[in-house]
Amino acid sequence: MLVECVPNFSEGRDPATIAALQAAAAVPGVRLLDTHSDPDHHRTVLTLAGPPDPVAEAAFRTVRVAAERIDLRRHRGVHPRIGAADVVPFVPLGDTPMAVCVALAERLGARIGRELGLPVYLYGEAARRPERRALPDIRRGEYEGLVEAIGRDPTRTPDFGPAVLGPAGAVAVGARRPLIAFNILLGTEDLAIARAVARAVRASSGGLPAVQALGVPVSRPGVVQVTLNVLDTRQTDLLTVVTAVREAAARHGVAVVESELVGLAPADALLPAAAAALHLPGLRLRQVLELAWALAETPPTAAS
Amino acid sequence: MLVECVPNFSEGRDPATIAALQAAAAVPGVRLLDTHSDPDHHRTVLTLAGPPDPVAEAAFRTVRVAAERIDLRRHRGVHPRIGAADVVPFVPLGDTPMAVCVALAERLGARIGRELGLPVYLYGEAARRPERRALPDIRRGEYEGLVEAIGRDPTRTPDFGPAVLGPAGAVAVGARRPLIAFNILLGTEDLAIARAVARAVRASSGGLPAVQALGVPVSRPGVVQVTLNVLDTRQTDLLTVVTAVREAAARHGVAVVESELVGLAPADALLPAAAAALHLPGLRLRQVLELAWALAETPPTAAS
Repeated sequence: MLVECVPNFSEGRDPATIAALQAAAAVPGVRLLDTHSDPDHHRTVLTLAGPPDPVAEAAFRTVRVAAERIDLRRHRGVHPRIGAADVVPFVPLGDTPMAVCVALAERLGARIGRELGLPVYLYGEAARRPERRALPDIRRGEYEGLVEAIGRDPTRTPDFGPAVLGPAGAVAVGARRPLIAFNILLGTEDLAIARAVARAVRASSGGLPAVQALGVPVSRPGVVQVTLNVLDTRQTDLLTVVTAVREAAARHGVAVVESELVGLAPADALLPAAAAALHLPGLRLRQVLELAWALAETPPTAAS
Repeated sequence: MLVECVPNFSEGRDPATIAALQAAAAVPGVRLLDTHSDPDHHRTVLTLAGPPDPVAEAAFRTVRVAAERIDLRRHRGVHPRIGAADVVPFVPLGDTPMAVCVALAERLGARIGRELGLPVYLYGEAARRPERRALPDIRRGEYEGLVEAIGRDPTRTPDFGPAVLGPAGAVAVGARRPLIAFNILLGTEDLAIARAVARAVRASSGGLPAVQALGVPVSRPGVVQVTLNVLDTRQTDLLTVVTAVREAAARHGVAVVESELVGLAPADALLPAAAAALHLPGLRLRQVLELAWALAETPPTAAS
């Protein structure tokens, strides 16, 4: 039984802290599948996978290192955040039930509150209140807003840990289906266009199902970014997202320069793009050699 | 240690024979990854994978069934062929050495000659003569030409079995790297255009490295087919092939209608197509979740 954990940390620039987070994840049985650091977002995303208990142990150790080394009072990046270890989602792999990830999130959340003294919000499938299912609601006002609100506004009381925000901020711990984090660069310096394109494609303003999007500035000259999450790749694949962004940008006379996948994507989110480029409407996951072996059944034994 | 075997049979229309071939492959430990039958080619391709000895046993049983049920004297299809079990390649998977597949080909070839009384030509990496490395040379004149030549022309003497061609024809048994069999339909009924496009893209007439191509007719109205093999996907990926075919066809004012993957393709042959469609030049195999787990190392144990 395998789970994935994709903790996001509010440090995308200091190599020593990024290396310390990677080292903290080194628990026997856990594989570090990817490290993605972004200096503009000022954020690092680790992708861990393995059996549930070792993955939860690795996640705890990375949260502890982040809380020791990252000070939110001095953190400025383009990505919304409330904490040093900003969000720690567990994701079921293969046939693992979502309930396993919900239980992991609850146990890790309680342990972070108890042993590290950080406020913890349970989100996604692990949310205990309906208004905490979506991260943007938990992150409302970001770190700076939450410093004021956490002790005064009962709707902001954490699920675990103290209702007080220190330099390491709070942690959103949750369970969710696989998600794709995807950035698309547009060939303009006009941030208003990135924001208009984000509004045009995101679900919350009537765009594509299961898509979250924000327009943000980046340090690279001549471009702005639409930063996206695709929350359910069965509802919206990546080619659909890129096509919608390209069309929305074209209405402003702007082209897509390049895109970027943050961390990993499941194969079924990429396949439609390969199929379209190759005029191969019939392309199936089981035609990818490496996946076919894993998905195939051994046929019944023939009579000899 | 895993190998793949991709036997091609000269029957693409009769469901009972196709089912008998599939059933013959059911050896414990062997997984049947794909069955591709094409009525125009009049050909079925099975993709088997598993440990070397069980896969070789499954291959032998399918060759025996093919020899019992398929009569080349009555076989007409658009794909060149010399036998009922026309070609039986072994392909190393993962870290399996090519030498394992060469040894399997030699052993299976000897057994087919001895137990089934069929002429066998070793090809590809298992070839014993340089002029037998390439299948088109072994298939010269096809079944009908080989009936005459096999007993008279010493260059056509088989490596195993009798120098006599019965109704089941001969078998090319070999070892090779993963290969992609790919068909592209062009929107014209002019076979001369399919042949000109095939000439423009294949390696033997100065086209793309490691690409074989033929223009052939198909039964679907209004289209002709370029049928291709990509022998080494490290040299030429599928997007490059499709782009070259599209450009060559466009010079004749003809468009690509659709393409078709016969059997399986390794992930690295498909990835550039997904990357291009998504404006994702940096896309790596290790960003595909299902592959990342298989490719990742467990990190060294941290001091607790």
